[in-house]
Amino acid sequence: MTASPETPATASPDAGYAPTEHTTPTRYRDRTFYDRALVHSILDEAYVCHLGFVRDGRPVVLPTLYARVGERLYLHGSTGARAQRMAGEKDPGLPVCVTVTHIDGLVLARSSFHHSVNYRSVVIHGTAVQLDDPDEKQAALDSFVDHVVPGRAADSRRANAKELAATSVLALDLEEVSARVRAGGPDDDPEDLHLPHWTGLIPLTKGYGAPVPADTLAPGIEIPDYLRDL
Amino acid sequence: MTASPETPATASPDAGYAPTEHTTPTRYRDRTFYDRALVHSILDEAYVCHLGFVRDGRPVVLPTLYARVGERLYLHGSTGARAQRMAGEKDPGLPVCVTVTHIDGLVLARSSFHHSVNYRSVVIHGTAVQLDDPDEKQAALDSFVDHVVPGRAADSRRANAKELAATSVLALDLEEVSARVRAGGPDDDPEDLHLPHWTGLIPLTKGYGAPVPADTLAPGIEIPDYLRDL
Repeated sequence: MTASPETPATASPDAGYAPTEHTTPTRYRDRTFYDRALVHSILDEAYVCHLGFVRDGRPVVLPTLYARVGERLYLHGSTGARAQRMAGEKDPGLPVCVTVTHIDGLVLARSSFHHSVNYRSVVIHGTAVQLDDPDEKQAALDSFVDHVVPGRAADSRRANAKELAATSVLALDLEEVSARVRAGGPDDDPEDLHLPHWTGLIPLTKGYGAPVPADTLAPGIEIPDYLRDL
Repeated sequence: MTASPETPATASPDAGYAPTEHTTPTRYRDRTFYDRALVHSILDEAYVCHLGFVRDGRPVVLPTLYARVGERLYLHGSTGARAQRMAGEKDPGLPVCVTVTHIDGLVLARSSFHHSVNYRSVVIHGTAVQLDDPDEKQAALDSFVDHVVPGRAADSRRANAKELAATSVLALDLEEVSARVRAGGPDDDPEDLHLPHWTGLIPLTKGYGAPVPADTLAPGIEIPDYLRDL
């Protein structure tokens, strides 16, 4: 499963994050981008990231709710969660790697070797710190809700003091960041082009099912426009 | 964003993986399962896992192609990839955490605090070792292709000696494994039930788009049944 020459039209290598040792790949440099708009679009489209940290010398990777606000990522947790506790105990914070991935299609080549998937991913390296400022924390909680459904934070009850205290938010600045993208169809070797196998791309699609009202929803409360328009 | 009392009908806490320190959560124990059939179904449905390892003391998380064969996971890479190189250099192998996550729905509560997503995830802790046995490696490469589309390995050209040499496969046994599942609708606090916000679940759907034949596909090669039936 190998590289493809295609690069996406949305990706521009200019004016983006500065590459570092952590964000310079050993392979597939033609698939690696540092463009901020591309990184933001990949981050904003996913519902969870994969948060990696080191505990007792071993790696831990956990799916985690998050939201991006400008060049800062907020990571959601409870005050009892391990990563959140560790970030609070460590000075200046917890070294993390946060990865977000979309799978866009199945790439079926004639050769087993050139099979692949199309994907868009972002990898962020940095140090996550616990949010102490109550205003930024409240705003971060709003951003989690609006990240799931834009417009929803204004149409729900805001966190109260007890809920704020029970929630831990980690902040991670977008500094060491790279995106990787594979797009396009299969890329068979010339000597395989005569083989009789069907070859091409199977796009993967995502969508929303019909909303399921909660059992406790009172009659007469209609579904709001921001949900109808999803 | 908090726990829900619902547990899925497919999950049985019996006869599964033995919990260890790494796979016993500090929170949400009612969402944690060790059932093999549930773990297998979550692993088999995803296209990539998130592979975590430690490099120079810092976490790295990379989206990685994989396949499950029985109680063993194969992780795909090239011989130049960092994780693969590190696994080959280390004895007995590379400590890893492999995580697979599906997001099934958006949970919209009346309170910001009880917003959540429905998900199914698997976390595997273990030591990944490089596959040396050529027969197992060839079989693992077939399993990657069949993991993407069942039946495809038999309808493509198998890897040749050069391609086998350029591919590195890590093996990870399923021993320290747990699944986490959140299902069902929102779970608002009793004192919020009178609030006027719409509340419920937005299911997320996944599907396949129409196959896109490669430009180089010869006329007369029809799409095979295993793709038509996706």
